[in-house]
Amino acid sequence: MVRIVVLGQGLVATHLAVGLERIKSGELEPVGVPLERFEYEIPVKSLEIVGSFDVDPGKVGRTIYQVAKDMLGSQLPVPQSLEAVRVERGIHAGSVKGLIPGARGLDEDLGMEEAVEIVADRLQHLRPDVVINVITTERAEPFETLESVRDRVRRGLVSASQAYALAVLRYAEREARRVALVNAIPAPLANDPVLVSMFEEAGSLLLGDDGATGATPLTADLLEHLAERNRRVLSIAQFNIGGNLDFLALTLPEKNIMKEKTKSSVVKDILGYDVPHYIKPTGFLEPLGDKKFVSMHIAWKTFNGLEDELVVNMRINDSPALAGLLVDLARISYSLLERGYKGTVYEVNAFFMKNPGPREAPNIARITAFQNMVKLLQGLGALSTGLPGRRA
Amino acid sequence: MVRIVVLGQGLVATHLAVGLERIKSGELEPVGVPLERFEYEIPVKSLEIVGSFDVDPGKVGRTIYQVAKDMLGSQLPVPQSLEAVRVERGIHAGSVKGLIPGARGLDEDLGMEEAVEIVADRLQHLRPDVVINVITTERAEPFETLESVRDRVRRGLVSASQAYALAVLRYAEREARRVALVNAIPAPLANDPVLVSMFEEAGSLLLGDDGATGATPLTADLLEHLAERNRRVLSIAQFNIGGNLDFLALTLPEKNIMKEKTKSSVVKDILGYDVPHYIKPTGFLEPLGDKKFVSMHIAWKTFNGLEDELVVNMRINDSPALAGLLVDLARISYSLLERGYKGTVYEVNAFFMKNPGPREAPNIARITAFQNMVKLLQGLGALSTGLPGRRA
Amino acid sequence: MVRIVVLGQGLVATHLAVGLERIKSGELEPVGVPLERFEYEIPVKSLEIVGSFDVDPGKVGRTIYQVAKDMLGSQLPVPQSLEAVRVERGIHAGSVKGLIPGARGLDEDLGMEEAVEIVADRLQHLRPDVVINVITTERAEPFETLESVRDRVRRGLVSASQAYALAVLRYAEREARRVALVNAIPAPLANDPVLVSMFEEAGSLLLGDDGATGATPLTADLLEHLAERNRRVLSIAQFNIGGNLDFLALTLPEKNIMKEKTKSSVVKDILGYDVPHYIKPTGFLEPLGDKKFVSMHIAWKTFNGLEDELVVNMRINDSPALAGLLVDLARISYSLLERGYKGTVYEVNAFFMKNPGPREAPNIARITAFQNMVKLLQGLGALSTGLPGRRA
Amino acid sequence: MVRIVVLGQGLVATHLAVGLERIKSGELEPVGVPLERFEYEIPVKSLEIVGSFDVDPGKVGRTIYQVAKDMLGSQLPVPQSLEAVRVERGIHAGSVKGLIPGARGLDEDLGMEEAVEIVADRLQHLRPDVVINVITTERAEPFETLESVRDRVRRGLVSASQAYALAVLRYAEREARRVALVNAIPAPLANDPVLVSMFEEAGSLLLGDDGATGATPLTADLLEHLAERNRRVLSIAQFNIGGNLDFLALTLPEKNIMKEKTKSSVVKDILGYDVPHYIKPTGFLEPLGDKKFVSMHIAWKTFNGLEDELVVNMRINDSPALAGLLVDLARISYSLLERGYKGTVYEVNAFFMKNPGPREAPNIARITAFQNMVKLLQGLGALSTGLPGRRA
Ligand SMILES: NC(=O)c1ccc[n+]([C@@H]2O[C@H](COP(=O)([O-])OP(=O)(O)OC[C@H]3O[C@@H](n4cnc5c(N)ncnc54)[C@H](O)[C@@H]3O)[C@@H](O)[C@H]2O)c1
Ligand SMILES: NC(=O)c1ccc[n+]([C@@H]2O[C@H](COP(=O)([O-])OP(=O)(O)OC[C@H]3O[C@@H](n4cnc5c(N)ncnc54)[C@H](O)[C@@H]3O)[C@@H](O)[C@H]2O)c1
Ligand SMILES: NC(=O)c1ccc[n+]([C@@H]2O[C@H](COP(=O)([O-])OP(=O)(O)OC[C@H]3O[C@@H](n4cnc5c(N)ncnc54)[C@H](O)[C@@H]3O)[C@@H](O)[C@H]2O)c1
Ligand SMILES: NC(=O)c1ccc[n+]([C@@H]2O[C@H](COP(=O)([O-])OP(=O)(O)OC[C@H]3O[C@@H](n4cnc5c(N)ncnc54)[C@H](O)[C@@H]3O)[C@@H](O)[C@H]2O)c1
Ligand SMILES: [Mg+2]
Ligand SMILES: [Mg+2]
Ligand SMILES: [Mg+2]
Ligand SMILES: [Mg+2]
Repeated sequence: MVRIVVLGQGLVATHLAVGLERIKSGELEPVGVPLERFEYEIPVKSLEIVGSFDVDPGKVGRTIYQVAKDMLGSQLPVPQSLEAVRVERGIHAGSVKGLIPGARGLDEDLGMEEAVEIVADRLQHLRPDVVINVITTERAEPFETLESVRDRVRRGLVSASQAYALAVLRYAEREARRVALVNAIPAPLANDPVLVSMFEEAGSLLLGDDGATGATPLTADLLEHLAERNRRVLSIAQFNIGGNLDFLALTLPEKNIMKEKTKSSVVKDILGYDVPHYIKPTGFLEPLGDKKFVSMHIAWKTFNGLEDELVVNMRINDSPALAGLLVDLARISYSLLERGYKGTVYEVNAFFMKNPGPREAPNIARITAFQNMVKLLQGLGALSTGLPGRRA
Repeated sequence: MVRIVVLGQGLVATHLAVGLERIKSGELEPVGVPLERFEYEIPVKSLEIVGSFDVDPGKVGRTIYQVAKDMLGSQLPVPQSLEAVRVERGIHAGSVKGLIPGARGLDEDLGMEEAVEIVADRLQHLRPDVVINVITTERAEPFETLESVRDRVRRGLVSASQAYALAVLRYAEREARRVALVNAIPAPLANDPVLVSMFEEAGSLLLGDDGATGATPLTADLLEHLAERNRRVLSIAQFNIGGNLDFLALTLPEKNIMKEKTKSSVVKDILGYDVPHYIKPTGFLEPLGDKKFVSMHIAWKTFNGLEDELVVNMRINDSPALAGLLVDLARISYSLLERGYKGTVYEVNAFFMKNPGPREAPNIARITAFQNMVKLLQGLGALSTGLPGRRA
Repeated sequence: MVRIVVLGQGLVATHLAVGLERIKSGELEPVGVPLERFEYEIPVKSLEIVGSFDVDPGKVGRTIYQVAKDMLGSQLPVPQSLEAVRVERGIHAGSVKGLIPGARGLDEDLGMEEAVEIVADRLQHLRPDVVINVITTERAEPFETLESVRDRVRRGLVSASQAYALAVLRYAEREARRVALVNAIPAPLANDPVLVSMFEEAGSLLLGDDGATGATPLTADLLEHLAERNRRVLSIAQFNIGGNLDFLALTLPEKNIMKEKTKSSVVKDILGYDVPHYIKPTGFLEPLGDKKFVSMHIAWKTFNGLEDELVVNMRINDSPALAGLLVDLARISYSLLERGYKGTVYEVNAFFMKNPGPREAPNIARITAFQNMVKLLQGLGALSTGLPGRRA
Repeated sequence: MVRIVVLGQGLVATHLAVGLERIKSGELEPVGVPLERFEYEIPVKSLEIVGSFDVDPGKVGRTIYQVAKDMLGSQLPVPQSLEAVRVERGIHAGSVKGLIPGARGLDEDLGMEEAVEIVADRLQHLRPDVVINVITTERAEPFETLESVRDRVRRGLVSASQAYALAVLRYAEREARRVALVNAIPAPLANDPVLVSMFEEAGSLLLGDDGATGATPLTADLLEHLAERNRRVLSIAQFNIGGNLDFLALTLPEKNIMKEKTKSSVVKDILGYDVPHYIKPTGFLEPLGDKKFVSMHIAWKTFNGLEDELVVNMRINDSPALAGLLVDLARISYSLLERGYKGTVYEVNAFFMKNPGPREAPNIARITAFQNMVKLLQGLGALSTGLPGRRA
């Protein structure tokens, strides 16, 4: 069994919880879970969510079942089995200030240092193999040096994601065991050399940053498609609008800037030259809910100097897309831990993340990244070998 | 120098001729020529068009310069150097019956057997290394057996493309030299095992079929993108409309069916399962000219059983896109011939062709095909080694 | 009460039946019913479907409730009250030959003359005020002369729609009462001068042809928008694809041509000049179901000779859109009959129909047509006067 | 002859100047000029630009010919006749602070009061019938009372547009003549009751505000289209991105807010209820130049409670669209002045302006507004009577 703890019981985490249980009960096909086209050494049914942290007063203290019922009950059947896990109070570090009234974390009561220890206590109790970070997008400054970490914690100058990362390390240390932290949000963890080396030291894994779903990985593949034909891209516009809490959060400028950074890095990495572009979460429109609207415009020069253009419009269920990827990130993490991988693993990040760590590692076409990752996993014997059997 | 003869002095061939000369004179950047991002052993400036065949009475007997002036003169500068080549009468085999009034081929005067010999004479005179087929889309029945070839020629039961292929073989045989035929149209040549084995026998190359530009290779990469996330594709609609002679030709049902076949094969090959789809050249709309309008709709199921959808709309200059690829097909053919390759070469077809030969060879994502081809060429020492230098 | 009989218990008729009952029970808002923004003299709740004819063996003999349960049950609640009406066998005239196996009409048993009389009998029994034609699109040749009518019936050379029109006239004659026939399909009834004069003679109404929903009326308003700015339209492409029986029917060439005609007439009527266009139902794609995908491309010249372009993509529930209009067509018909209107009424057709009768009457922008119709109805005192109260 | 002075020799004014001369010389068709489908009492050839004001040091002192050559010379032929007019220094009032380095107005040298008098002097010299305001979008606070005007001028607390409006009034007063000011930018002039009454007092005209081109009037007609079918609009997203100076200006928040206001007012006015919407100029992307990219998404509920949606994507030449409308605004203004109209005229504003004055006057569908305006002009005998002759 792979034991999972989630940080942030929002839409993504709740889709993950509901979808996992539905797949396990046989009621739902594992569509949207990449490796389910193959045979993987760890079946989906051996994954289990054993704990959850949040700071929203409307969630803390309730079961995942209750939270899911409220959030998705009108759209999806919510499995009774989700009553087994109760959402606990986590570390706030101001991550939802101005967004969720009454939000409150352990740090507000106990100070940050103590809060990190308490979360580590709880992790010792819950015994996760993998911790998944899907809290609200927040601003975070990478640690400069190993020495600065302690000091910043003491002064409360860490983001919630950083605090959780440190709690995971404390848990690993106290239990003398290996753990994986999967960071699916834009805060730079796997892109922070200091944190990565701390995880390496602890024989643990830190994968991230910012789960790649929706327009960004598609843009990566579209740009690679153009680059391989040596078309000269002239401009790129990408609009995103949605009505979930995540989009509301991204209307706050300092959160938006975090997302813009992870979204934009794709252009130069893949094309090899920079291009004027406008790529960012553009707005909040409540009735769209979790099904966002994306519009992209790309213009390029073709042979003989003429100009072509392409427009992509999408309606995408935002959160399930990430939830499906997290299923695989959890079991891949487990496989890698078992085989002694530590620090971060670019081959995995390159496919799953918008801003793949380590820092300076480039964005590449997802189709290429996927094949590299499959090769790695096949080499490890984790994935059935042979040509990818098309069993969808 | 790589000597090139084109069959069909239409939009594609004329964009190729004009673009090549403009690149050679330094006036135009080699945008749209895939390998120009790398260093290739044969520079673009060593390619030369030395002959051209057509059956349109408005083209036969005129220089490429005059044809280009009429066709592209209002849009592009037409280099004087194109006065050097005059369009000759080719083999008709009814390929433009009902499309171009007064079209007439050697076969109409001399019978098919004799016409093939005459074209072979002319090729002996022009001495091409590479022959490129870009005549109007036509229906062709693959040869069943080696024995049937002679008989079908005698009875005039071959398509123009097949007749040209045989003329190329005759030329190779008479000169005891190796030649490459690049088939950029849907007629199944590289997908005809009999023809492929004849080229193999002759130490010559037959690449094809149907140049992959526009919506089809993009669909391939989009479907691979979805497949890698294990999204379940529900339906695919793809509309194409344009105003060039090629689109007019495709309003004739038997030509349309040829195109539909090469376009549709992509779905099952890449997804691994079939999906209801509507993929074909849809209509002719004269004012759009060579800049076609493409509209695609793809719907799929995502994690937790919800439905997403994507719409792509494009305005694409149809013919320059293929012309840019032909530049590379010509020089890759030359490199392969030099190294003793014969028959057909899937690694090259898989990237450049909608219906990559040999028959039964699957369509794969273009991004994957590109990397395989680059690897092959690097292995041969034809392409600069190291990671693809991004020099666009 | 306004008594309604429907011809063709397909998607449109079934949405009408279900939606009407749901509105009457207060469970559904009257969204999609144009005049419900105003106060109309006849409330929706006084409309009642009292009879239904079909030729599909899977429908004849069953109640509308059973038919609706099968067709829409997974998507919508189906009111029990629909058990009151049973679908009866109608006149076939080959309208679904090759589409619905086993379809069979009264005419096949009794001959056409007798079949018309039987339907008239049934109408005498059902006593409708309004008959609505929503059978499968079929080919119909307008009657040349009054004299030819009898002869064509005798020889079985009428379409089903024409036969139903004659049955309605027989019913009106026998009962010496006024009736309205609303023709929502492309067969030219209100565009047939002979039929219109027969209805006029009988003091009855014939509205039609082909309900205007979806892309066509939108195109009308878009073209008017461009015309009013004197932009010179250069080309129009309009693709429609869907997965319902109606789209399947339109893959049969002779049905498609009927639709293309009613769809294309809009261009010249509104712009005042003709423009190359491609406007027709393009294909059938089963998974899209009743929610069709529409893609339109319009290019024009703007001031100073530059070129602009517009693309519209839609996902539209095809059948409910027409059903909502039929609610108003039924009660407007009733109001007009009461006030002595007979023959056909252009002001109503111009808004509601793709090919507004009488023949030769032009297509105009829907926004204009709507205002003209509102003025007519206000003049009659049927619609609350004053500026259109925005009560949506 | 109708004598015109333009304020702001930017893209719009320059397209107007170039297009006018090209139409007058017969080289260009009057496409994009609405009333040219009809016969108007004042032919286009009697319009003449006699003066121009700007504050850009790169423009002041040069002829319109020189400015046009730089701006449009690579795209369009620039008529020599434009050498006749030289751009003069106008009033700055900070309108391009932070946008155009070195911009400088008369007010910076002489103070605002004096600057207004100098512009009035110049107008006396140039003798315009119509003054057209197309300066950079700027923030402006309406005047509260007649008394406050003088005071705000003295303290320099007026925007450039307001200062120009006062200069126009001074000119009218000194010459005892009637003048028209057409305000094509978002600053509220025709929506300022104080200014409107000052113009009324002076027997002069003030039309505005903010020329309606592109996405906003199209949205108006689309919403009316939906409203007339009583579809319940659920959400509206509208993205605009372009690469001209106007879009660059709109990235400054206080300019953007002016535009958002005039763009958003359309929703409630036309639907009769408010709807969550995101409608604003979204970003600046230099390579798009003056040909902006627009993307709109509208979702609604249809009959039986199902959901439809529509996406519009456009590539539009921004500035010529407005220039074409200004041709008609100039001659309509002249006709109205001649017939004694004064203050503002809603029937004209309602078609041509995004935020039609007077304040509180609603936005209506453009198709309706157009017909109302045509009726007014026909009533005056300015426009050929009879049904709109389709002479495009
Ligand atoms: N496709 C996607 O949805 C996608 C893709 C990439 C990244 N992400 C990222 O995943 C994250 C979650 O997305 P979502 O749609 O579930 O958002 P959400 O707003 O629905 O959920 C976030 C949850 O985190 C909780 N939270 C906030 N701060 C916390 C803290 N300090 N400790 C514990 N819980 C906290 C919130 O109360 C909320 O329940 C976001 O950061 C988003 O940017 C999502
Ligand atoms: N992007 C693309 O344009 C693209 C992509 C894939 C395939 N193709 C194929 O390439 C071909 C050429 O496209 P195009 O746009 O240049 O078309 P085109 O119609 O402009 O040119 C075809 C030319 O071939 C000539 N021709 C016809 N029959 C001939 C014969 N028997 N012998 C010699 N000449 C003959 C015609 O007279 C014409 O000049 C078509 O078959 C098309 O399907 C084009
Ligand atoms: N928005 C729209 O859906 C729309 C718009 C304009 C016109 N229409 C027209 O409305 C008609 C109905 O559309 P639909 O979506 O309900 O189609 P449908 O195929 O679902 O229904 C047609 C029904 O008519 C029945 N039928 C066929 N021939 C008949 C006959 N001779 N007598 C009695 N019944 C017969 C069929 O069995 C079927 O039940 C079509 O002709 C369509 O073109 C629909
Ligand atoms: N379709 C359209 O282009 C459209 C539609 C509606 C409104 N508008 C408005 O029209 C205006 C002009 O648009 P544009 O595309 O020509 O912009 P532009 O930026 O090309 O031109 C504006 C010109 O005004 C000048 N200017 C700025 N402040 C001035 C001042 N105080 N006095 C004199 N000149 C001054 C600038 O130097 C520049 O030359 C903008 O306010 C825009 O919002 C344009
Ligand atoms: Mg999300
Ligand atoms: Mg072509
Ligand atoms: Mg229908
Ligand atoms: Mg502009």
